[in-house]
Parts: sequence; C-alpha cells; structure tokens
Amino acid sequence: MARDVNVGLVGYKFMGKAHSNAYLSVDKFFPCDARPVMKAVCGRTEEDVKAFAQRWDWQGYETDWRRLVERKDIDLVDIGTPGSTHAEIAIAAAKAGKHVFCEKPLANSLDECRKMLEAVRATGVKHMVNFNYRKCPAVSLAKQMIEAGQIGQVRHVRATYLQDWLVDPEFPMNWRMRKETAGSGALGDLGAHIVDLARYLVGEFSEVVGDTKTFITQRPAEGASTGLSATAGAGTEAVTVDDAAVFLARFTGGAIGTFEATRMAPGRKNYNRVEINGSLGSLAWCFEDLNYLDFFSTADASGAQGFRRIIATEGDHPYAGQWWPPGHMLGYDHSFVNAVYDLLQGIAEDKNPNPSFLDGARCVAVLEAVEQSVESCAWEAVEKVE
Amino acid sequence: MARDVNVGLVGYKFMGKAHSNAYLSVDKFFPCDARPVMKAVCGRTEEDVKAFAQRWDWQGYETDWRRLVERKDIDLVDIGTPGSTHAEIAIAAAKAGKHVFCEKPLANSLDECRKMLEAVRATGVKHMVNFNYRKCPAVSLAKQMIEAGQIGQVRHVRATYLQDWLVDPEFPMNWRMRKETAGSGALGDLGAHIVDLARYLVGEFSEVVGDTKTFITQRPAEGASTGLSATAGAGTEAVTVDDAAVFLARFTGGAIGTFEATRMAPGRKNYNRVEINGSLGSLAWCFEDLNYLDFFSTADASGAQGFRRIIATEGDHPYAGQWWPPGHMLGYDHSFVNAVYDLLQGIAEDKNPNPSFLDGARCVAVLEAVEQSVESCAWEAVEKVE
Amino acid sequence: MARDVNVGLVGYKFMGKAHSNAYLSVDKFFPCDARPVMKAVCGRTEEDVKAFAQRWDWQGYETDWRRLVERKDIDLVDIGTPGSTHAEIAIAAAKAGKHVFCEKPLANSLDECRKMLEAVRATGVKHMVNFNYRKCPAVSLAKQMIEAGQIGQVRHVRATYLQDWLVDPEFPMNWRMRKETAGSGALGDLGAHIVDLARYLVGEFSEVVGDTKTFITQRPAEGASTGLSATAGAGTEAVTVDDAAVFLARFTGGAIGTFEATRMAPGRKNYNRVEINGSLGSLAWCFEDLNYLDFFSTADASGAQGFRRIIATEGDHPYAGQWWPPGHMLGYDHSFVNAVYDLLQGIAEDKNPNPSFLDGARCVAVLEAVEQSVESCAWEAVEKVE
Amino acid sequence: MARDVNVGLVGYKFMGKAHSNAYLSVDKFFPCDARPVMKAVCGRTEEDVKAFAQRWDWQGYETDWRRLVERKDIDLVDIGTPGSTHAEIAIAAAKAGKHVFCEKPLANSLDECRKMLEAVRATGVKHMVNFNYRKCPAVSLAKQMIEAGQIGQVRHVRATYLQDWLVDPEFPMNWRMRKETAGSGALGDLGAHIVDLARYLVGEFSEVVGDTKTFITQRPAEGASTGLSATAGAGTEAVTVDDAAVFLARFTGGAIGTFEATRMAPGRKNYNRVEINGSLGSLAWCFEDLNYLDFFSTADASGAQGFRRIIATEGDHPYAGQWWPPGHMLGYDHSFVNAVYDLLQGIAEDKNPNPSFLDGARCVAVLEAVEQSVESCAWEAVEKVE
Repeated sequence: MARDVNVGLVGYKFMGKAHSNAYLSVDKFFPCDARPVMKAVCGRTEEDVKAFAQRWDWQGYETDWRRLVERKDIDLVDIGTPGSTHAEIAIAAAKAGKHVFCEKPLANSLDECRKMLEAVRATGVKHMVNFNYRKCPAVSLAKQMIEAGQIGQVRHVRATYLQDWLVDPEFPMNWRMRKETAGSGALGDLGAHIVDLARYLVGEFSEVVGDTKTFITQRPAEGASTGLSATAGAGTEAVTVDDAAVFLARFTGGAIGTFEATRMAPGRKNYNRVEINGSLGSLAWCFEDLNYLDFFSTADASGAQGFRRIIATEGDHPYAGQWWPPGHMLGYDHSFVNAVYDLLQGIAEDKNPNPSFLDGARCVAVLEAVEQSVESCAWEAVEKVE
Repeated sequence: MARDVNVGLVGYKFMGKAHSNAYLSVDKFFPCDARPVMKAVCGRTEEDVKAFAQRWDWQGYETDWRRLVERKDIDLVDIGTPGSTHAEIAIAAAKAGKHVFCEKPLANSLDECRKMLEAVRATGVKHMVNFNYRKCPAVSLAKQMIEAGQIGQVRHVRATYLQDWLVDPEFPMNWRMRKETAGSGALGDLGAHIVDLARYLVGEFSEVVGDTKTFITQRPAEGASTGLSATAGAGTEAVTVDDAAVFLARFTGGAIGTFEATRMAPGRKNYNRVEINGSLGSLAWCFEDLNYLDFFSTADASGAQGFRRIIATEGDHPYAGQWWPPGHMLGYDHSFVNAVYDLLQGIAEDKNPNPSFLDGARCVAVLEAVEQSVESCAWEAVEKVE
Repeated sequence: MARDVNVGLVGYKFMGKAHSNAYLSVDKFFPCDARPVMKAVCGRTEEDVKAFAQRWDWQGYETDWRRLVERKDIDLVDIGTPGSTHAEIAIAAAKAGKHVFCEKPLANSLDECRKMLEAVRATGVKHMVNFNYRKCPAVSLAKQMIEAGQIGQVRHVRATYLQDWLVDPEFPMNWRMRKETAGSGALGDLGAHIVDLARYLVGEFSEVVGDTKTFITQRPAEGASTGLSATAGAGTEAVTVDDAAVFLARFTGGAIGTFEATRMAPGRKNYNRVEINGSLGSLAWCFEDLNYLDFFSTADASGAQGFRRIIATEGDHPYAGQWWPPGHMLGYDHSFVNAVYDLLQGIAEDKNPNPSFLDGARCVAVLEAVEQSVESCAWEAVEKVE
Repeated sequence: MARDVNVGLVGYKFMGKAHSNAYLSVDKFFPCDARPVMKAVCGRTEEDVKAFAQRWDWQGYETDWRRLVERKDIDLVDIGTPGSTHAEIAIAAAKAGKHVFCEKPLANSLDECRKMLEAVRATGVKHMVNFNYRKCPAVSLAKQMIEAGQIGQVRHVRATYLQDWLVDPEFPMNWRMRKETAGSGALGDLGAHIVDLARYLVGEFSEVVGDTKTFITQRPAEGASTGLSATAGAGTEAVTVDDAAVFLARFTGGAIGTFEATRMAPGRKNYNRVEINGSLGSLAWCFEDLNYLDFFSTADASGAQGFRRIIATEGDHPYAGQWWPPGHMLGYDHSFVNAVYDLLQGIAEDKNPNPSFLDGARCVAVLEAVEQSVESCAWEAVEKVE
C-alpha cells in the first residue's frame, strides 16, 4: 500500500503548472510506493493562486511561502519560483524537516548552492533538482548505453540549447531578463540544462572558457504596450543578462566539449541537443525530436553501419513502459511525471533521488566558471563541490 | 461557471486508460464550459475494474454496461470496447438520453453504423467518434490551411499507417486478430484512421479498389506460453483478419489516393502518415513526428521554395496554446484531451462535435467498399450515408 | 590492356548529355576492361548535333541514325531518344551486329519489346536498358542485403516517384506529354523506374490494378509564349498522356505493393522512393537522399533497434570505392557512369549486363497490365515474358 | 570562341584526381570563355605519374615541379600537394608568370601565406585557393540570401566538420598526421574549411580561443602491416598533430561562433555543417545533405513558419542550372567543377576569382590565432591581413 506524501508547491506559473500536472498524473501511470497528496500551492497574489488551486485540484493555498514551509501537514516542498528565491525557501524547508524538490538552476550562485546542500544534508531530507530532460526516456536510455560501454570512452560532447523567443526586439522585459532575479540569461536558463546533460552522460567538467553576449540591450518595459518601439527611454528597461552564451569545456575524464545556449536562434524553438562521440560509437539526442535517440556503433557489421534512429518508446526503455504502447510518442510534460516518480520513490525507499542538490550545485559551479572566464578572457577551473 | 457532465466509461484497457487521462486533464488545461465528473467506469471483471477505478479516481464502477447506461446520474457514455460491442451499447445509451463518445471504428459494419446514427439522431444526444489523430495540432492546422486554400485544389492523397507488432510469429492471438470481435484487422484498426484523415482533409471517397493479406495465419493461442512454436495444432489459433490492407481511391472532388495499413512493417511503430498534394502546394504529416507539419507552397519566392517544417506548438496553432510554450512538444495522449475538450464544448454549447457518428459511418462505408472490392477484384463504389 | 569499344550515340538532349558524360568519365574512375571510344553522336538537326559533338569530344556526328547503325567502326549503339523510336533503332542495330544500350522504357509497347528482345537474342549482341537508379550504390547495396537474407521474406513494397514540373498549367507541351511519342505519361516515365526497382529488389509482378489521371488536359503549345493563358483553343494542345498513375500489385513471391507516379506533387523534385518490409527487417531509399539507405533489423539488440541510416559511400559499398573517400557524396550522373561500367564489363567479359532487354520487356509488361486494368476497372494479370 | 588555358597540375593523389576530373568536365557543362588544356601533371614517382597522366588524358607529365613551372606552354599551375609545399611552388609559379590555383590550406603558416600573396600581387597573376565547399550550389545560395538581407544581421555561427577515419587506433600514419607536412591535424584540414565558410558567409574573425587534443598519440607506421598492435615502439610512429580542435570566435560584425573540427566522431563521415542565425532568420547547411539548404524566415506568415528545406538544384540556383533538371542531385566532385569554372572565367575576364590567396591567408591567420590561444590559454586577436 502506497504511503501518502503531502506536497506544498511554491509558484504557480509555467513550472507550477508542469509540476501540478505531474503530481496529478504520476500515480495513474506509475506503480508508486508513495503517492502525492496535493495539499497546498503558494503564491503572492491571492486571487490568482486561489484560482490556480481550484483548477488543479490543490486542497488549499497559501500566500506566504514561510507559512507553507511551517505547516505540519506538508512533507515535501516543491520550489518553482525564480532562481533568486530558491536558497531561502529550500533552506527553510530543509530546516523544517521537509523534503525539497527545486527547479533549476539550483540557485543563482554557488555560494547559495553550498548553503542549500549543507541544509539538506544537516537535516537528512531528500533533495532533488529538476533537470527534467534527464527523464526523457531517450536520454535515460543514452545514459544506460554509455554506462554499458556501448560507445566506449567519451571524447567529444557538443551541446546546444537554442530558442528564439527573444528575437523580436518588441518582446517585453520579464524576470528572466533581469540579473537580480534570474542570475543570468540564456546561460542559467538553458545552459544549465546542457551542462547537466553533459555531467549526467559524460562526467565532471574540469575547465571552461566562454563568451556571453546581449544583442538587444533595451526592451519594452513589462506590461508596456507592444506597439512601442524598443528605443531606450520612457517605457523601456535595460536587459541585464546575456541573450546568448558559448563555451568550451574540458572534462576530468579527458573529453572536450562545445556548448551554446541562446534565445536568439530564429526557428529553433526548444532545440536542446547533445551529441556525444566515444571511441566505439556515438549518441545524439535533441528535444525537438525527444522520442528519438540516434546511435552509431562501430561494432555493427562493416558495410551496414549507420546512425540508428531508436524510437525510445518500447517497454524495455526507461519510463516508457509505464505510458503507452511502442510508437505512441511522449511529450514535454511526461518528463516531469517521470521525475516526480523518481522523487517519490526516493522518499518511499529512503534513498536520495537523482539529480540531487549536489548535481545542482556542481552545475552552478560550471556556470560560475563560465562567467569568470568571460571576465578573465581565459580558461577557468571549475570549483569542486563535494 | 462550467457545468458538470457526468461520465460513464465502458472499457478499462488501453483506451480506458487514454480516456481516463483525458477526463482527468482536460479542465486543467482548457477553459471548459463543461467539466467532466468521473462517475463510473465499467468492466466485466470486478476486481480489475475496481482497481482501475481507484487508480484513476473514478467515483465508482459497474460490471454490466447496461446498468451503467441506465444510471440516472450519467450524462455521457464513453465506449472504449472492441468494435463488435459498439452498436448495442451506443444505441442503448442514446435511447437512455445519454450523449455518446465512441472509439473507432464506429462499428464493425455499416449496417450497425446506420442504426447507431439513427438512434442518436432520434434522441438528439451529442455523438462523437474518437478519431483522435484529427486532434493533433499539426493535423488540425493542416485542415485550416487546406480550407484557407493554401494548397489549392487537392489532387493526391497518399496515406500509410504502418506498425510492426505482428512481425514476430510468436506474438499470441488477441481480440484484434479475430473477425468476430474486431471485424477486420489492419484495415479497421489502422485503415480506419487514415480513411478518416483523408475524409477530414480532402473530402468524400467515391470509389475504391483494394487488397488484403494475412501473412501469418496461425498464432499461439491467447495466454499460451510464448516459448511454443507457432505451428498449427494444439496451442494455436487461426488468425481470421487481415495483417495488411492496401487500396486505391477516387474522391468526389477529383483527387486520387493510395492507402496502406499494416502491422507487418518492421521498424515502423506508429507510422500514421498522410501527404496531400494540391494545385498550389503540399502538406505532409506523420504521427512519428506528430508535432511537425511539412508545408510546401508554390507561392514562396522562386529560388527559396522548399518544404517548411512547421513545429505546430505555437500559441496560434490549434489546441497548442492551451498546453506549453512553443517548442514544448506534445505526445499521443494530448490528442485525446483535445478531443474530449471538443466533446465537452459541444455538449456545453449544444452543438454536435466533430467527428460525429456520421463521420464514423462514412468511414466504415469506405472500409466496407474496400472489403467488397477484395471480393470482386474490381473497383467498388462507396455507399452514400447521409 | 583494355580493348576499345566504339560508341555511337543517338540523341543529344538530356539523356545524350548524361550518357556522354558517362563515356567521358568511366575509364577515369573504373578499372575498365573495355574503354569507350566516343565515335559519333547522331541527331536530326545538323547544326545542333555538330555543336554537341564538339562540346562533348565526340569524334564525329551523323544526322540519320540509319547511317550510324551501318557504320563499320561502331561497336555499340546507345539509344537516348523518345520511347517510340527505340524498337526500330535497336532492332536495326542488333541486326547490324552492334551491342545495344537503350534508355527506358525499353519501348512504348510490349509487342515492340518482344521484337527487340528477339533481335538481340538472334544476333547474340549484348543488350542493356538504362534503369540507372539500380546503379546508385545505396540501391545496389539494398539488393545485396536482400539477397543475403537480411530482411527475410519480403512482404511489402511501397514505391512512389513524385515530381512537380507539370504543376504549373502554363508549362508548355513537349514530347513527354504526347501519347504517340511517350506512350504514356508519368506511368512510363516515372512508373517504369519504380516498377524496375521493385522487380530488381523484390521479384516478379503477378497482378496489378491501377488508375491514371490527367489533371490538366490542355497546355500551351510547344514554343508558344508562356504569357498565354492555357485555355483550349489557338495556341494550346491537348495532353494525351496521364499526369499521374497509381496501382496496387501482387508479386509472385507473395508480397503486395503500392505504386504511385506523378508529375503533380508540389515540392517533390525527384522523389523516387521505395520502402520494403520483410519478415526480418526493412529497407528504404529515396533518390532525394540518394547516398543513404535506411535499414531496420529485428536482429539488433532489443532496446537498441531503429532504422540505421547507412551512408553508402564506403569502400566496400557497390561502386562507391571507385569514386571518393567515405562521406564524399555522389550525385545523379554517377549512376550513369556506374551503369556504363557494367555495360562495358559485360562486353569485355562476354556476359550480358543487367538490366537486360528482358528486364526492360518485363517492366513494360507490368505497365501494360496497369493500363489494361485502368480500362477494365479490375485486376489484370501481368503477361509473362521469357 | 573560348581561349585555351594550358594547365599544369602538381600532385596526383586524392586532390589530383578531383582536379583532373574538374578540368575534364568543366567545358562540357559550363559556357566557358576559357577552356582548360590538360598539358601536364607532375609527381615524383615517374611510373605512377605516367599512369595517372594516361588515365586522365593529360598530354604529358613531369617529375619535378620546377620543370613544370618553367615550361613556356603552361598558363596555370595547380597545386594539389601537402600544405608544406604550397608556398615554394606557388611563389615560383607566380614569378614565372603563371596563374596559380592552390589547395587549402593556403600554407602551413601565415608567414608563408603573406609571401605567396606578395608574389601573386607582384606579378599580377590570377590566384585562387580551393575552398570547394563555397561552390556547392546550396552554399552559394546561402551567400546570396545573406547578402540580400534575408536573415538580417548575423548573430550566431555554429560550425562543425566531423569525420571518423581516425577512430580506429590501427589506422596507420600518413602525411596528414605529421606536423612537418600537414602543419596541423583536424584544425588545418577540416577547420580551415569551416573557417572559410564562416568568413564567406558572415565576415571577418576578430578574436578566438580554442583547444586541441590528440586522443591517439602513437599509430602504426605508414606501410606497417595493420595486424600490429598500436603500442609505442618498433613499427609505430608518434602523431604530431591534433585529432580534434574546438574554438570560440568573435566576428568584427558582432556575431559570435562555435567551431569544431575532428576526425574522431564515429558515424560522421563528412559532416561539414554550418548554421547561421540572424536577426530575421536562419540558414543551415551540411555537406552530408549537400543539395539542401534549410532556411527559416521570420517574415513567413505567423502560424506557418518553419525551416524550409530548399533543394538547391533549380535552374535559378547558383551553378545548378548548368547541370541537370531540378531534383537531380549533385555530389562532391561537382563543387570542384564549379570552382574551376570560376577560376577559368576569372582568367578569361581578367578579374581575380574568389576565394583568392587573400582569403586563403586570412583563413590561416584565424587558424594561427587558434593555435596561439591554445598556447596562451586565453583569447587571441586574429592578425589582420590586407
């Protein structure tokens, strides 16, 4: 019989919706040993959070995250707010003995990450950072194949995360373009995902050198009518984060890599792509074709070698067997359900799920090294986090 | 304020799961004017249906569909059982004044379809057949573009629905391989979908000529251990439906088409693909890349023409705006949610949703004409249903 | 030391150019045991054929094919003229003891084909029909793989040859749209190629049923200014062949197939595609990606199966090793060089090359059966040619 | 009437073959104002070069490039030897008043390049470096579209040139793996091509930072039997160049880029790919699909935007109209013919063709800056060459 896990969710926008959907669906599809009970969602604007709670079948709501964290009937605090708020909420939750599930990036600084890690370790709660793309069946399958040695020793990683929603200069400001809330721009938002995928699939970064760029430095103020021209002045606001970030990396295992994150690539909507070349084969995956994993093996018969396009929806593929028959494609939201299943199983089995806050912290260490290298115009070592 | 629609679902296997998920999700994502209340699910094996009801948050269950249909507190009967049972349930439901949502094919014979159509018309209930692929945003977008004249007059349709789950001769019998339950094999199961897509996008069929084939005529009996060899004799059962069906078609509007449905195409998992060529352009879609619509326009500038790969996840694409930001791909199950939204809106607005039982009947008329042509070895006119 | 083969070419348009290029290149890339000597090209307009001869390094020219055929210094007659002329030239050449290389379709009627076959057999000359797509390395590789049993017993063939050059109603008439020269339209021009590919890869056709359609029945007369509207009357000419042909087929080996040839598919430039499904795997090829062969094998490890995209440019792939290093893609014209190499080796080794006139005749037998089925509106057996 | 240009070619291996083929074909397909006369090919091993000359219809041969350069009957010296020899031959040829066509990279050092540039400028001969990929129709089309402003201001370049021929540790040494002949490894061989494509399409590099890696440092000696294990010692030789190179770049126009060249990417045969994002659209091209250009335009109608897959074989596409009808794909060797056509027209019209030695030198300047950055572990400015 599955035990109940009472969930309190902070944030009710894009991530709040994706997480709510995951809690709603997870025990329908997965044989959960722990079932989520959707206790309360928290947001600052009462009218809105109340409507959200009703829509998504949350039992109640709060307007102050501190109250949510203090509630005795909450077992798990889920943080779906901007990065600048993660540390304070997560630390308070951990101190209150709650498990913590946190959106990525774990925080806007490595210093905050270390404190979060310290807090969850001190209290022994379970902790997970939501790098949801790890949970796409094709990506998990790639991980299995690499661990099984199917591509040999990894030599190359090339990862890009390309979007285009900032190409229009009339697109107005929001929190993702302000340093104080987002920490960084494409680097932290998109780069964090590909750094995590590289860490997951290849291993630890040792050194990086990078570059960042803001192509459009002034945008219409949030809420400004979009008819305004984006010239500096009344009704505009300065963009204080990068539109794009590129960097090179060296890995402790000997591989080298190229990374690029941008919101300025017309036509690329969610082009989160990673290709890995090893001594015996290659793997490639792109979120825009999320159900596919491309695999090349030098072990295939001569004359009949080629990239194999695996449709990762078979019963023996990770997570896929819980969903639909082969060929019945999965989408974006399924990765959140898969993640939440892992989280709940971790709680049920008293075993920390992955990716943990340590993974979150190590990712931020890489991002900070990239930012340092932009300052120093030279390679920078990635700070070690244990 | 959305009104409640009390749902009773018959069937709790693959389709039962997909429909339950749709009822669970629809009012979270869509601004429904009618919200489903998951009253009861019905199945013959009490233990199983009870467990299913608990898992999927159905308020109760029934073990006899007749009892379900008679319940006063049910507004909508949803039929997710094999085709041989559709007519009886649907007619009883309609007579009891319930709206009816029915899986495809509408029935195993055109005669049954006519009776079903008569029943829903006589009582004025809403009726819908679940050709879910119409509800993929890319397919709905194709429909809009054709109606807007973007490819001109349609001349060619080529449609294939390829799967491979029967390639293994040790795959055991189930109801889908028996004529008495399934009516036909690949023709009714897969062919029905591509006939519907062609009707939706191109218009009515006038004549067809076809061929069917059963490549593996004996299979291990249902429940037989899969270690047995599939030779005829003890432990085997005769396959009484087609493994594959192919046919040519002429449309009333002047287009011609080729159609193929098979469960014997290794590597094709759910390759439901349709390409349409008109006098001014072309459109192509395949479920294995369900979020994409390929579009060629002769109106594009000379020298820069080419198939455009539209990612149908933008806010102005059908259904897509209710889900996630652009590029956040959708999967199989989203099409069911979209369908159920249309159904509920039809009920709320007192306007029959599409595809209706008339669409279901006309599809079966095409399938029957194909079967007749296999008998006659000649072209057969498709019977008209009004 | 390679022996010389003196070549006389009839025709100097599209095919004349492609054949001339093949003779020019073949002994540069291939280890030919017989080298072509470009003796003479033949055409009716002296000025034009003379210029062509100079441009392409032909030693001389003729303006009457009868004179060419009679020349003592010609060993091989190459026929690159419209189908209506093939039989007369080929029979004369054979009677004069010349080897014959003939463009496809072999002739516009099976009756002519039989006479051609009789002629070449009577005199023992070598004969080849130029189904050049067989000679793309990826297609030859597919043949090898099928013969090696890599996809098991073939069950399905689906072939399309789609072009779009007749979509514009202002495109003027030429010989390809007149029955008296071309015999048929898309059927003989494009359909012949896919029938040959199916015969090559799968085996003999037994029965067919088909449909043909002419969407645009009047076109501007040849040479008419393209500014004219295409209404019937002065300056227009009736199209007397099909714009499109579709048919179903049964093969003697038990496979079934769908075939489509059209010049009315916007955006498809030379979409000559064939997919074959067998009991153990699948193969797919399309000329628009001519260097690739897609291969699915049920023998691949479970969990890692998928269509393999073989780049057929390796040293151990047919023909490819004579060209460039792996990954250095080949194009359209290379298939002609490969074909001419096979032809010359056949002559050198006194062994008839493939595809022979028998292949050409059997292809025409299939096309005629399709045309008969269009007349009879029923399945027609394909006439046997031995 | 076309004038004759007498050609002397140095080198008769891979590039010698590709260049010979280009001279043989160019005036067949193109309306050349200057026609190549294949006077002599030069190589050190008389037996081999003599056989090559016979095979490829060269009128004669030389075994010392100095003699070739001195010959009065040579107008154009074509250099297809390793990079270490380019400068000496090119300078001697220029001094002898010959036009010079040189393989890439122009030389192994910027210093040599400057001297070559000085020499050709001093004598006023025509000079061209063979960056053949510029001459693929799809790439030339991309150039036209960028110049026409179709993607707006360029912001991002991402270029990779991936091969896999060194993945096998038993692959023996050759000149391409020795610093003294090749200058560098993947960087100069493959990186040179993508640097040139970026310069062609985007503009000048200002700064770079890079990394290089040699994964396999000892290989079987050239000519050693491949059965030997590749351990250091007798029968092995040290690899003295990079297996892979990665770098970031800043362009004078404000764009940023990522670049990667490797011979260690299993399954990538000739994956020379460049993607460019501008303020109004994107373009992407990959040699493994050389006939295609992907184009995204923000000017397309909302709801119908997507990457357009242009098949660059139309009559109005660069070079393509000289070859075959639309959809009749071109291959690797066609790019050499297109290049030689441009070279000959430059000579005929007394106008230097592109890419010139200045382009060659500027490319080497970028490569040298990458190497300097590897030494300094920091960004390096690219030296200006005028």
